[in-house]
Amino acid sequence: MKHDALILSCDTATSNCSIALTTGGFDNCQVVASVSLNSGITHSRRLLGSIDWLLHESSLTLDDVSAIAVGLGPGSFTGLRISMATAKGLCQGSDKPLIGVSSLDAIAASVASEKLICAVLDARKKEVYGCFYRCSGKDVARRCSEPFVLQPEALAQQILEPVVLVGDGVDAYAAVWTDVLGNKCEKATNRQKFPAADIIGFLAAEKYYNNDFLPVDSAVPAYLRASDAELSLVRPPKEFQVVTEAKTKNNND
Amino acid sequence: MKHDALILSCDTATSNCSIALTTGGFDNCQVVASVSLNSGITHSRRLLGSIDWLLHESSLTLDDVSAIAVGLGPGSFTGLRISMATAKGLCQGSDKPLIGVSSLDAIAASVASEKLICAVLDARKKEVYGCFYRCSGKDVARRCSEPFVLQPEALAQQILEPVVLVGDGVDAYAAVWTDVLGNKCEKATNRQKFPAADIIGFLAAEKYYNNDFLPVDSAVPAYLRASDAELSLVRPPKEFQVVTEAKTKNNND
Repeated sequence: MKHDALILSCDTATSNCSIALTTGGFDNCQVVASVSLNSGITHSRRLLGSIDWLLHESSLTLDDVSAIAVGLGPGSFTGLRISMATAKGLCQGSDKPLIGVSSLDAIAASVASEKLICAVLDARKKEVYGCFYRCSGKDVARRCSEPFVLQPEALAQQILEPVVLVGDGVDAYAAVWTDVLGNKCEKATNRQKFPAADIIGFLAAEKYYNNDFLPVDSAVPAYLRASDAELSLVRPPKEFQVVTEAKTKNNND
Repeated sequence: MKHDALILSCDTATSNCSIALTTGGFDNCQVVASVSLNSGITHSRRLLGSIDWLLHESSLTLDDVSAIAVGLGPGSFTGLRISMATAKGLCQGSDKPLIGVSSLDAIAASVASEKLICAVLDARKKEVYGCFYRCSGKDVARRCSEPFVLQPEALAQQILEPVVLVGDGVDAYAAVWTDVLGNKCEKATNRQKFPAADIIGFLAAEKYYNNDFLPVDSAVPAYLRASDAELSLVRPPKEFQVVTEAKTKNNND
């Protein structure tokens, strides 16, 4: 029965590992079980075991799950790959559909406000991942921009109206928001700073009912910018070039 | 160091079993780990094992915990006794202080609103447990009434201004709120319907810094009304009286 769809969700875009089993969308959501772990231990050592534990403690198995939803990021490259790989593996093994939900959308959806909402995740390198949202009536916050990666100062200067900031970028660049935005800026609580898997589940329920699934074999996270490894590939550092040239020379010798 | 106080919290006042490890109060809170289980399995079979799992997954032990906080209710009698007994046992065994937090206060603290806030928990027997709250500025919702147990109709008739209702009593008596309060009533999301142990932890942090502890040997939950068992003791049913009288008579013979 579609109304009883049970969705298993996970998000490891940030330092927090969040997992949930939910039914229903935002209007009729129920959290069957959820867990969050943010103790600095790598997600790869915790994610699969925690999913297994949560199902077991709820007297459920993967057979009971209707779909598997994953937080697509943006966020930590390694984190995104761990949850995507885990979700794909579970989908492949259990023949369940895969649903992707933006981690920024999940953060924004924890806020109900008539003001402009801006989700900001710390992107390191003195940048934030972000996206703008608005709530219409009782509906959950919906995007009113494309996601972006920006220096916090540049982002703050673009905000010309009262705004609610939410995400782990709020604390990470607290001084910037205060300096540039002053009283115009309301900060969501620390409790809302990470993408929560139960919210990923509620957003995924909408996609489930619309058959909006990702291809299990080729789905990729929403990285938003190239990783350090990719950047090195495009423009190899000097030492690397020298070694490569030397090696090539030797090989040609 | 008091600033790094790690608080282990649990609440089983409702059908939801909620456990959290947190540091800090509302202004600087961090959720180290949390779990919620609401799959209809009795709390007594889940609570202690889940606490153990959460500590283990966070690479922590009870030795690392500064205090143990428990949701005092009101709520399910059996639920309240399970978490209180568990918390007391852990405190006694590890020599940690015990902190009690009202489960209604924890529910209300999930709401930030300039309106009156009313926490309502389903008390069965066509009644709700409730309490009124207001937010002042950036502060968390604080009580502006004593907790009470009332029929939902009687409660609704007392509310003369716009109100945010929060707790599992919102859904349980949805028709009453709509009929009596109409547009005056805003309902918090289902996500906020149960007392969350992380919020219990943030509220407990204030008490920790004020040395506001409960006596481990004599602390009791905030039941608000007598249990069925107690009511039977005060006014034994007719059959019981007859049997007792008959027995007494026999003994006197």
